[in-house]
Amino acid sequence: MEFSSKLLENAVAEMAQLPGVGKRTALRLVLHLLKQPESQTERLVGALHAMRNEIKFCKKCHNISDVILCDICANPRREDETVCVVEDIRDVMAIESTGQYKGLYHVLGGKISPIDGIGPSDLTIASLVERVAQGEVKEIIFALSSTIEGDTTNFYIFKQLEPYNVVTSTIARGISVGGELEYADEVTLGRSIINRIPFENSLKS
Amino acid sequence: MEFSSKLLENAVAEMAQLPGVGKRTALRLVLHLLKQPESQTERLVGALHAMRNEIKFCKKCHNISDVILCDICANPRREDETVCVVEDIRDVMAIESTGQYKGLYHVLGGKISPIDGIGPSDLTIASLVERVAQGEVKEIIFALSSTIEGDTTNFYIFKQLEPYNVVTSTIARGISVGGELEYADEVTLGRSIINRIPFENSLKS
Repeated sequence: MEFSSKLLENAVAEMAQLPGVGKRTALRLVLHLLKQPESQTERLVGALHAMRNEIKFCKKCHNISDVILCDICANPRREDETVCVVEDIRDVMAIESTGQYKGLYHVLGGKISPIDGIGPSDLTIASLVERVAQGEVKEIIFALSSTIEGDTTNFYIFKQLEPYNVVTSTIARGISVGGELEYADEVTLGRSIINRIPFENSLKS
Repeated sequence: MEFSSKLLENAVAEMAQLPGVGKRTALRLVLHLLKQPESQTERLVGALHAMRNEIKFCKKCHNISDVILCDICANPRREDETVCVVEDIRDVMAIESTGQYKGLYHVLGGKISPIDGIGPSDLTIASLVERVAQGEVKEIIFALSSTIEGDTTNFYIFKQLEPYNVVTSTIARGISVGGELEYADEVTLGRSIINRIPFENSLKS
């Protein structure tokens, strides 16, 4: 692509650094901004700048927050004996939107993945172990995605927590509510048979 | 979506204003920026800010430019008797990349579209008429997309140029080079038969 303007070329090049945004999409987005009032670009630029510079990570659960202790950790009505281990803020938002969970979280910031060069020390695992060591936490719920990386991470943390008196559990995998058996993959269907639950339990909520 | 951070929420909301970017995609993009070094966000922010504030539109052809007269208009080796009328800078880039056109351009900035509230006065049509009125232009080539809006715009400009002694032409529509007849739509195939060209001409270039 040959640009008639260096300013435009720079903006497109930076936009194209975003994941899933190619040069053509970047050009479309940038030309859109040029057609809109200047104030829209200023708001976008301001919001991104403020976010990157002022955002904090909760010192307890490492979730993204505007303050040092996030709203969930600071909420006295949350059960602080239960900690749900998730990968990032999107998982926290997904679980929060169910309204079914009253405990706290621990945001790892990723999964152990040697291929991507992510080891245990790149995640907030040490901080989780420390939370457990302090003795308040009674149960750890693993809610990482069930991939090789997720399972590896779960197992690594499980091993780290062995010295401590803490219950570990993992969220249930199975056929989604409303899902049809014939379209389910064999692994999920197999697991949902092995991990079947008493019928009375399925009547709750 | 419930956010744990107002800063994050603002950034996502502004990002989601871009065309084709929903809330989920915006969140993914913004979280990506948070994971990258601060310098990446600063470069993006700086490039967008500079572009929106410093970019100019060529006073002659209205193409995006860093200077008052764009490189193409300022190039003495371009044939200034021919002007190709296009919708936006992407069309200029597409035609330039063919290396087949040596004339100048006129960027309209859109097409006449009453549904979107875009009338002739929202485009740079008056400026095009003025260029023709000054007498240097001998041929106008219409290269708008062949939609109802494109055809309307072509016809409106054609009518405006009637008082002047200028040849008007439109780029050829037809089966793309390498395209197979059986997959072509009927309108395109029909036009390409009606507007057939002498075989000798097809040997050029």
